[in-house]
Amino acid sequence: MTASVKRTPDAPLLVEKKYFTFAEPPEEMILDSGARLGPITLAYETLGELNRDRSNAILVLHACTGDSHVAGYYPDDNTRPGWWDGMVGPGKPIDTDRWFVICSNILGSCMGSTGPASINPATGKPYGLDFPMVTIRDMVRAQRQLIEHLGISRIMALIGGSVGGMQVLRWCVEYPEMVGSAIALATTTRHSAQAIAFNEVARQAIMSDPDWKGGQYYDGPGPRHGLAVARMIGHVTYLSDESMREKFGRRLQNRSSLSFDFGVDFQVESYLHHQGAKFVDRFDANALLYITKAADYFDLESGDGSNLVDDRLQHIRFLVLSFSSDWLYPTYQSRAIVSALKKNGCDVSFCEIESRWGHDAFLMPSERLYTLVNRFLDRVDRELKVS
Amino acid sequence: MTASVKRTPDAPLLVEKKYFTFAEPPEEMILDSGARLGPITLAYETLGELNRDRSNAILVLHACTGDSHVAGYYPDDNTRPGWWDGMVGPGKPIDTDRWFVICSNILGSCMGSTGPASINPATGKPYGLDFPMVTIRDMVRAQRQLIEHLGISRIMALIGGSVGGMQVLRWCVEYPEMVGSAIALATTTRHSAQAIAFNEVARQAIMSDPDWKGGQYYDGPGPRHGLAVARMIGHVTYLSDESMREKFGRRLQNRSSLSFDFGVDFQVESYLHHQGAKFVDRFDANALLYITKAADYFDLESGDGSNLVDDRLQHIRFLVLSFSSDWLYPTYQSRAIVSALKKNGCDVSFCEIESRWGHDAFLMPSERLYTLVNRFLDRVDRELKVS
Repeated sequence: MTASVKRTPDAPLLVEKKYFTFAEPPEEMILDSGARLGPITLAYETLGELNRDRSNAILVLHACTGDSHVAGYYPDDNTRPGWWDGMVGPGKPIDTDRWFVICSNILGSCMGSTGPASINPATGKPYGLDFPMVTIRDMVRAQRQLIEHLGISRIMALIGGSVGGMQVLRWCVEYPEMVGSAIALATTTRHSAQAIAFNEVARQAIMSDPDWKGGQYYDGPGPRHGLAVARMIGHVTYLSDESMREKFGRRLQNRSSLSFDFGVDFQVESYLHHQGAKFVDRFDANALLYITKAADYFDLESGDGSNLVDDRLQHIRFLVLSFSSDWLYPTYQSRAIVSALKKNGCDVSFCEIESRWGHDAFLMPSERLYTLVNRFLDRVDRELKVS
Repeated sequence: MTASVKRTPDAPLLVEKKYFTFAEPPEEMILDSGARLGPITLAYETLGELNRDRSNAILVLHACTGDSHVAGYYPDDNTRPGWWDGMVGPGKPIDTDRWFVICSNILGSCMGSTGPASINPATGKPYGLDFPMVTIRDMVRAQRQLIEHLGISRIMALIGGSVGGMQVLRWCVEYPEMVGSAIALATTTRHSAQAIAFNEVARQAIMSDPDWKGGQYYDGPGPRHGLAVARMIGHVTYLSDESMREKFGRRLQNRSSLSFDFGVDFQVESYLHHQGAKFVDRFDANALLYITKAADYFDLESGDGSNLVDDRLQHIRFLVLSFSSDWLYPTYQSRAIVSALKKNGCDVSFCEIESRWGHDAFLMPSERLYTLVNRFLDRVDRELKVS
């Protein structure tokens, strides 16, 4: 395995987006829904070098609208670092000088992996709603194919927040023998009624836009208005009352008095409009439908008790982190993860990090977060070498 | 003043919707925006009898999408009691055997009072967006005309929750000499960035529906999809994580397994769809735009310090109530009301009522709430008689 990172002391960390298409049987997957899907491609990026015994791999799982571009820069764009560039890189908490980092775009997304905007081989057109529903488990099963393709049989650490945290937990339940340790941030064992409600409102905003056209909008403008509204809803849930008060308060946007019309009065409105507009240019509306539904379907407590209470998980070292002002996946939901894992006798560390930034906190620079993650990985690395 | 309530022991409490049109000059109002508006009609209902010295009036101020129908039944519809029928009526906490209760539909609404769906005398067509922006202060100023029309110079008690609570506070600031006491429930001194954010997303959902047609949709179907989405957003903010977990959890709606499509899977989705559809049939989309904007503009701390810190309010007795799980107007915002009023040396009672029902709690049956309101009114009634 050669490193995909080219690095000189003065140059930015460069990464390359790569693609893995399921080549050997099974070229297709049978999904949780029973539907078959294939061919399947996953976009992925790697940083650092896989060591000789292939024991230093860290798999980063991205959140709802994230992508494989976790850190560094693409050679042709030195303006846009990866979404977790503060966390991942040389000398950073997830240190690419020590560890081999992999991040792949989730199945069902639109950032290089197969999803509803991909071409349906049966029709030669984008799938649209003919794309089968995918679950978090389906995403994880696809990632496993990639990991095996990279020649890795045991992952040193999984790490992910939000929907990425769901993947972390699902990985542990599905393939415990492949997992050395796992870090779950700002996530849950099951999507709450409130979280489902926000997702459903976002989906309704998209699907009631006439330009959505039942999901077959790829030869037109697409549901730009509906998608923007959906994204605005998302952003309100990612922040907190506290952070919005601090960040925006009631400050007016480029004006000295109220408009008395329905334009933008407040900075918070301008922020939401900006986030909505920016998202429409980068993300596929159908992909948001599929990924939010996968999150809503996520439930590790659907059977007889928690799927996390399982002896096969006993050897996995866990770090569970929540954020005090996160009201989308509040701390009590992280405590439920910890409580289930403790029943296995797992080695579980838990911390609620004080933060005013709401759910977004897991993506924000934070010394506390960085230190907790780095120390955990350092300990895991040493312990796994000994064992 | 004759009572508008006809009551026999076995019959339901009957009320009648009445209309007051500003008759004498000023037939029109100069609004906070500087615009002129007229003619102006307010729909209102009354219950109980005004006593001889006109000292037993209670003015109920309704919330965002409420109306004048606070309690009892219309003669032609014995299925739909008023929105606060548990609170208001004979022998109820706001006892119509003792007090004369008035509730009027707010200016800018669509439930009988002048608003954007009313006919613009200049064009003979509904105003649409030619309706001028109204503020909470404008609503209160219009209510004052009604109160004077009813021959009342001093209101024994004001009571309202949410946007109704904003009107309560604004009344006290504008016309303290007319107010004996005031009960503000689940409200705030100023709309927070988070509350503005939710309202703006709701407005964008409406205004991006092509059937909104710039607000002139009255000869067509109107923005039914956008309005439904807006209402769904509202409903999520009215509940709480806790109440949604209890009320819906992850229970499926009329099915035994997941659909794996974008129909309704969960009860919480079905509930939101139902609330959205029901609302579209009863409420005008433009009215929601205007009222949410009035709420966003509400700020009693915009000048040099709080408008509530004012000697003229000193004589008013206050009851301020918040609800523990209300995250739209959290308890700290009620504490800010109390704190400002205390600076005047006002007689202020405050209670955070334990409730899992979120913002909706102020509308839900609650012995605690009922007792607090009734005891306060009873005390005020006795004290005002003595003074």
